[in-house]
Amino acid sequence: MNAAERVIRTAEAAEIGVCFANPGTTEMPLVLALDRVQAIRPVLGLHETICTGAADGYGRLRAKPALVLLHLGPGLANGLANLHNARRARTPVVALVGEHATWHRDADAPLTMDIEGAARTVSRWCGRMVRASEAGPLAARAIAESMAGRGGVATLVLPHDLLLEPVPDEPSPLPEIVTPAAPDPGAIAAAAELLRGGAASALFLGGPALWGEGLRLAGRIARATGAALVCETGFARLATGAGRPPVRRLPYFPEQAQALLDGFAHVIGLGANKPVSFFGWPGKPSRYLEDRDGVVWVASAEDDVLAALAELSRAVGAREDHPGSPFDPPTVPDAPLDGTRLAAVIVRLLPEDAIVVPTAVTNAYPFSAIAERARPHEQLALTGGAIGEGPALAIGAALAAPGRKVVNLEADGSGAYAVQALWTQARERLDIVTIVCANRAYRILGLELERSGEAPGGPATRALTSLADPPIDWVAVARGFGVPGARVATTAALAAALDRALAEPGPFLIEAVLP
Amino acid sequence: MNAAERVIRTAEAAEIGVCFANPGTTEMPLVLALDRVQAIRPVLGLHETICTGAADGYGRLRAKPALVLLHLGPGLANGLANLHNARRARTPVVALVGEHATWHRDADAPLTMDIEGAARTVSRWCGRMVRASEAGPLAARAIAESMAGRGGVATLVLPHDLLLEPVPDEPSPLPEIVTPAAPDPGAIAAAAELLRGGAASALFLGGPALWGEGLRLAGRIARATGAALVCETGFARLATGAGRPPVRRLPYFPEQAQALLDGFAHVIGLGANKPVSFFGWPGKPSRYLEDRDGVVWVASAEDDVLAALAELSRAVGAREDHPGSPFDPPTVPDAPLDGTRLAAVIVRLLPEDAIVVPTAVTNAYPFSAIAERARPHEQLALTGGAIGEGPALAIGAALAAPGRKVVNLEADGSGAYAVQALWTQARERLDIVTIVCANRAYRILGLELERSGEAPGGPATRALTSLADPPIDWVAVARGFGVPGARVATTAALAAALDRALAEPGPFLIEAVLP
Repeated sequence: MNAAERVIRTAEAAEIGVCFANPGTTEMPLVLALDRVQAIRPVLGLHETICTGAADGYGRLRAKPALVLLHLGPGLANGLANLHNARRARTPVVALVGEHATWHRDADAPLTMDIEGAARTVSRWCGRMVRASEAGPLAARAIAESMAGRGGVATLVLPHDLLLEPVPDEPSPLPEIVTPAAPDPGAIAAAAELLRGGAASALFLGGPALWGEGLRLAGRIARATGAALVCETGFARLATGAGRPPVRRLPYFPEQAQALLDGFAHVIGLGANKPVSFFGWPGKPSRYLEDRDGVVWVASAEDDVLAALAELSRAVGAREDHPGSPFDPPTVPDAPLDGTRLAAVIVRLLPEDAIVVPTAVTNAYPFSAIAERARPHEQLALTGGAIGEGPALAIGAALAAPGRKVVNLEADGSGAYAVQALWTQARERLDIVTIVCANRAYRILGLELERSGEAPGGPATRALTSLADPPIDWVAVARGFGVPGARVATTAALAAALDRALAEPGPFLIEAVLP
Repeated sequence: MNAAERVIRTAEAAEIGVCFANPGTTEMPLVLALDRVQAIRPVLGLHETICTGAADGYGRLRAKPALVLLHLGPGLANGLANLHNARRARTPVVALVGEHATWHRDADAPLTMDIEGAARTVSRWCGRMVRASEAGPLAARAIAESMAGRGGVATLVLPHDLLLEPVPDEPSPLPEIVTPAAPDPGAIAAAAELLRGGAASALFLGGPALWGEGLRLAGRIARATGAALVCETGFARLATGAGRPPVRRLPYFPEQAQALLDGFAHVIGLGANKPVSFFGWPGKPSRYLEDRDGVVWVASAEDDVLAALAELSRAVGAREDHPGSPFDPPTVPDAPLDGTRLAAVIVRLLPEDAIVVPTAVTNAYPFSAIAERARPHEQLALTGGAIGEGPALAIGAALAAPGRKVVNLEADGSGAYAVQALWTQARERLDIVTIVCANRAYRILGLELERSGEAPGGPATRALTSLADPPIDWVAVARGFGVPGARVATTAALAAALDRALAEPGPFLIEAVLP
């Protein structure tokens, strides 16, 4: 057994189920080692950003990380932006970076780069194998580090010559995984007292407070105390729809976000950091909860929010589950599409237990506003603001949750970032419906210009924000990558296409032409 | 005038002609400033890797850098791999990274990232504006640093609030640009003595020794002394074809490279570093010219190779230009395509003064082997090994050299990395013909497996190296991005398609189906 096989067998023993890769020469020992295990599914991406985005989506739905194989520094660089998103999502991801042979590194060959310099910008842990005998323990350490605390990116640099060296066939058990910090009893008591006071209160939720047992507990507290549930703008995972307690998403624009939070006398933090504005807009706040009373932070984004929710729910005597939202889709007249009507069609047709990846930029918000009226489903949002992750997140979600339909509500601007992901969706026969909101612009930039009084700008502004010339033919692009598709411009056509896409196995793309 | 306009006006005064961008909110002051200048052409890329690759192509053909606008750390991350290629090519590039407002940075908003940590991996200089009054001097410094020595990437981080601040309308002249080091007279004399000795000698060339005046001087020395001309595998720019002295490209595989260099009693370095192998293959050399005699390095990749060539040519009494290769394209029978026949068709039809971007991985080598028999043209190769740059390099080349045809000889594996570049080619009506060598595999990995005795590998290896399922329909993808195309499988069909593509203005894609 060589060191490469030791790395892969350690991952197999840790029940890691998938490896996303775009390998090169230095990673071939790891690829050949994958040939010798059964339980790790190898999935090829046409660009490393697909691999790291897919690993983010996969890890958000599992307690375990996916592996990602990356080709030296440039391969890591290509995957870096979605590792940034994974870092912000606190997703467990193990990035294995093949590196030049130890004896070749000083030669400064073309691909040589400061791998750790790039890796540290996104990794909670970064290691390098310097002896083949470390292969197993280092792989185990990387896996444990990716799951430590609330989770994150662990990067392990693996020189090619060491991967080829023989090592003893000795399993490397995972080291103890560091659990998140327990909640502070004083904060629990303070929060419970505020909630019992009866004034308008909000639980500001993030991380595992937004799905599964965490959301159930948050719903109980809401039911018992009348508190509203509000979540981070860029949540990692949210369960919503019929039967789940409704959660309001913090708006993107600062005056709307500030107004929402100012409407509550008390804000209790559970699993998120204190909310900050997405950008530092001139004259707008940076931190929404500064210089005010009634704010108690029970569990930050790093803390054990499930324990905090359990204790807070006991402290306020919350014993009954929230009855949840009803299934109440809006009626949809047949009409030309706009963002609101498009959202209504999706909310009406979304099947139970679907996973929605709402990574469209401007058009995800109308959907978010009414998603609680759909059948029960989960959503994975953009956490780190690095656009273009949606089609890759969808791949990871589909592989992590076979049998569940995935709907990627994507923009034409951000969708073009990672259009290669469609090929992997076709290759792996994944049940992903991509709805491209084709407004032929980076619309968010137009909105920003309006807000700053600079709209519409001059010729350079138009050249750098419009996607109208030429219009991207998304159906042709999808077909080129092996994904069937349809173009629609009305609610009835969208409903028909979405019905068809959801009924058939495998991926499908809908180009929804929007004004 | 605000600081953003000061930055842009400083670039305008330095005669920078193009700005590649995929801007976000933090860069909008720079975009609006571009509205107020006439001489900087704004070019939108659908992903930052397109922007940085295009800037690399542009800078290789000009003495001046292009600007690239990048959106905070994640935007820089997306462009990092092609900035690595630009670093290896020693291309002048000025990367302007929009950053959060100074008062917002500590809030750790979603897009916050260690920008300098990522930037330093590729930049020869990295700066950050901390006062608006520095805008002009820092922009001038960044431009000068990008052109200093042999050139490189200069990264300037520009916080959004400072960009909006008013500054005096005072031009910022460029600081003195540091020129490359002058050649060592002792090395010139030693090289001249070896060349006069009459034994088989090679000039090992890189950088500006491979085109223009540099290549003319190298050709004179070759003519006078009988020395062969050999170049780096990953050259930045090479002039070849009829009338130019033939230059042999150092092979990619180590045994071939070593054999070529071992055939020369003397090797004189001019404008390149000493050649090293691309990877550290087991049992193969890392450095090809170690432990041997007859090696004199006159000018490294950082030195003033044009001065070195001029002095060496005087020292050996070289007074006549090399007569150059004849136009001697191979005859091409009508037959199914393979790499050799494909190369022959291109060599026959390539128009005078074309720019070829031979970034196909396995199929660029048959072309390189016979390119000197084509009409006079230039080539831009992959310098840093970060694949997928070709379609973006082609954009930069077409904008830098209007009126010259650009031919991107691309692979399906590497081409899929940056397929979004086709849209910019269509939008800017660029005369680029993309020939995709569609062998439905990352063929280089198959060759590596054969070399290491591991071919063909098992199911994971096939899953991670084959592109056959589904086959990418390149013509459909191109059409989707607004580029017409054709699929060909024979030499006659390729010739017809290439003739048509070269005759018409604007971009065209040819999917060449290869075994």
